[in-house]
Amino acid sequence: VDDSDFEPALGRDLGELLGAERVYAGERAAKFDPGVDPDNLAAALVVMPANTAELARLLSYCNSNRLAVVPQGGRTGLCGGARSKPGDIIVMLDRFDAIEDFDAESGVAVVGAGVRLEALDEQLREQGWTVGVDFGARGSATIGGMVSTNAGGNEAFRSGVMRHRVLGLEAVMANGSLFSDLGRVTKNNDGYDIKQLLIGSEGTLGVVTRVALRLEAVAPAPIAALCACADARAAIGLFQRLLRDPRVRLMSAEGMWRDYAEVTAEALGLRPLVDFASGNPYLLVEIAQPGANADADLFEELLAEAAGQGEIDEALIAKNEGERRNFWRLREDWAVDRLYPHGLWYDVSVPHASLDDYVAGIQQKLALIDREFRVFIFGHLGDGNLHLSVAHGRPHDDTIRAAVDVAVFEGLKQMGGAISAEHGIGLEKRDALPKYLCPTKYALMQSVKRLFDPNNILNPGKSVRV
Amino acid sequence: VDDSDFEPALGRDLGELLGAERVYAGERAAKFDPGVDPDNLAAALVVMPANTAELARLLSYCNSNRLAVVPQGGRTGLCGGARSKPGDIIVMLDRFDAIEDFDAESGVAVVGAGVRLEALDEQLREQGWTVGVDFGARGSATIGGMVSTNAGGNEAFRSGVMRHRVLGLEAVMANGSLFSDLGRVTKNNDGYDIKQLLIGSEGTLGVVTRVALRLEAVAPAPIAALCACADARAAIGLFQRLLRDPRVRLMSAEGMWRDYAEVTAEALGLRPLVDFASGNPYLLVEIAQPGANADADLFEELLAEAAGQGEIDEALIAKNEGERRNFWRLREDWAVDRLYPHGLWYDVSVPHASLDDYVAGIQQKLALIDREFRVFIFGHLGDGNLHLSVAHGRPHDDTIRAAVDVAVFEGLKQMGGAISAEHGIGLEKRDALPKYLCPTKYALMQSVKRLFDPNNILNPGKSVRV
Repeated sequence: VDDSDFEPALGRDLGELLGAERVYAGERAAKFDPGVDPDNLAAALVVMPANTAELARLLSYCNSNRLAVVPQGGRTGLCGGARSKPGDIIVMLDRFDAIEDFDAESGVAVVGAGVRLEALDEQLREQGWTVGVDFGARGSATIGGMVSTNAGGNEAFRSGVMRHRVLGLEAVMANGSLFSDLGRVTKNNDGYDIKQLLIGSEGTLGVVTRVALRLEAVAPAPIAALCACADARAAIGLFQRLLRDPRVRLMSAEGMWRDYAEVTAEALGLRPLVDFASGNPYLLVEIAQPGANADADLFEELLAEAAGQGEIDEALIAKNEGERRNFWRLREDWAVDRLYPHGLWYDVSVPHASLDDYVAGIQQKLALIDREFRVFIFGHLGDGNLHLSVAHGRPHDDTIRAAVDVAVFEGLKQMGGAISAEHGIGLEKRDALPKYLCPTKYALMQSVKRLFDPNNILNPGKSVRV
Repeated sequence: VDDSDFEPALGRDLGELLGAERVYAGERAAKFDPGVDPDNLAAALVVMPANTAELARLLSYCNSNRLAVVPQGGRTGLCGGARSKPGDIIVMLDRFDAIEDFDAESGVAVVGAGVRLEALDEQLREQGWTVGVDFGARGSATIGGMVSTNAGGNEAFRSGVMRHRVLGLEAVMANGSLFSDLGRVTKNNDGYDIKQLLIGSEGTLGVVTRVALRLEAVAPAPIAALCACADARAAIGLFQRLLRDPRVRLMSAEGMWRDYAEVTAEALGLRPLVDFASGNPYLLVEIAQPGANADADLFEELLAEAAGQGEIDEALIAKNEGERRNFWRLREDWAVDRLYPHGLWYDVSVPHASLDDYVAGIQQKLALIDREFRVFIFGHLGDGNLHLSVAHGRPHDDTIRAAVDVAVFEGLKQMGGAISAEHGIGLEKRDALPKYLCPTKYALMQSVKRLFDPNNILNPGKSVRV
């Protein structure tokens, strides 16, 4: 242990608890990949317990000594939920990396919190199963992190979010006690569902160590189309049509508003893909077909039906796998962030019925704040989750930032939406949250935090102020 | 108000809060249907607030005066969760009966807690949607009750349980404050998901008043088959085959162990339906077919494939709707309870992988307690939810009852099951729960109860002892 950055006694204690080689400080700590935020490693003190018993001893020690603990998975979070500061102890769950049980007959897996999504998915697919939650950061994101942030992604409209995949959960609480509720069944009314509080609480109520997951059966390879829709309502009509058509299985439904799509296509040299005369948004849909490779003729027929109902202006079916991948590059590449840096990013949920009004409303409000603002909107249209960047390429001062917050968030809760759809609260939305949440809910959040973590050692300052 | 049974001051206060005609005592209270348990109305004092504001005033009054409140929906619960005693105030949610919003384009409904499942489902079906949770008590059960008990039912293996259908929720808390989290979106990470504690807590943490539900699309009419399977493993093989076959949609997968099926069939004059040479359990499966009426030829082909794999010994496809209904009468009629009264009833969840071992294990253990015991087992095989009655037709003393509890519950949690699958805890399983639950979870349940309801006025004594 290089203990230059902290009290020698602390280094000694941690070394005794976990083994000196599992305590990383100074240069050894700096070797970890900080992920999306350099401040994730700002504490410069990392420990890596081997198992639940070690983690329990560690948290008990930290609790007694009032030491702040920042649990980390893949460090892919976008709200600062894994950010640390000097004096914190970063707890990496990397060694909780076992797929402990995989029942390929009924589609249930029990895995350690440190297992990476992509690695797990690859193993499951060999036997016909998949996690049912998927998103861009799949290579780094861990199951424990996904549970702690209630991760969403591309498949939520058909398989739900992480909360819907978790059958059982084990965690270590702030005082080191073990919470073990590792059920493997869908129906479980054994008392209050305490584990639901741990899901999505960003490591502020307990540290998730092990999860039982309900898996989804793998679907056949899909074909993709990019559809120009007159408005979100038309796109949702198309979405519902494909979702409910018994001949196909809708696999993806991603939205891109025109401004976003054009700028991104231009940046990627993919302009022809979005060369539609009209349409805003565009909907990237993928269908699979029961028991066979998807049939492009049937897809064309379905899209023609949708066009007949005014749901599509124009559509382009991917000719081959390369073109399908390019559709996804349009959706997943954040070129707008390179071309228009300093963008203010949001991740909101909007009920389908309110999408057009919401988008028109924020565009109007943002134009009043700064006429040069561009509003790049894309996201998971199937579940109403919009990602958006408000940008003119230059930095914003705090006043502008606050005004944009209001423009984006105001009214969302009243229409049944969410100011954080899938990215969570972390540090970045922590202070906005109480402005928009029902006061009773926020007060209960604070009370729950105090109840679960009376010394405020677990990821302090994230999710909720106490 | 007939105030013969309680303090006149209380009657006057309640009358002032809610209007005298909405306070029911004496004969007027006795006119309500007590549902499955006469003790549900033992309090003999019923109030029926009109809206959230009235309920808030009522709870605030009860909280200040330390008066116990028993919220009631359809009174169809089987664990005593709605039971009341003299001195309690029964709060019926019947007037929260509005379908307040139904978005038939995206399949979301916002409904009052007092709306009945069957009535709601009928209205939704007219526009192609259904609640996605269904069970025998559909005529009486209310949405608020279903949320408060996290109801399960027949469709859980494909649509989840009530918890998975609830997008948003409004409730009045013990002190009368309003909890409003009426989101209508699947992705919602706006802080700790407090509403998950209200779901399934049997009215002990708050009174649910309004719910936003994600709906399921109506499927075409199914055809049914009764299949004799060599063991549960074979039945699960069949279940997985049909669930994953892209040509069909599996709608039902209900299990009946041989003893149950034979006794029930005999009682209902349906012996020929279960006249199989072998098989235990029988699996009642229903399939629908994409876009068309189900095709019996394809069904026969699928069942023949299953037979070829040893998943089925024999099978009987329902020849007509009458025969299909008779399959369901076998499953849903509680003839065993009439023929073998005083049965000890259980409702457990067992992971598929453990089903055969579990059933063999309890049969063995129960035979050691009393050789005359018969064990009638049936339930929702698709999700591993077994209902069972342990009976010899005579009453049991407490020692036997305790021994049977142990035989049925022991080991369940270790295998990932649940001692209450869908019926809840109420009074009847309250004292068994802490024996089998992780102590940290149980302690958190107690702390959460004290936090949400410090004066213990909300359905006191149910779910958890404090």
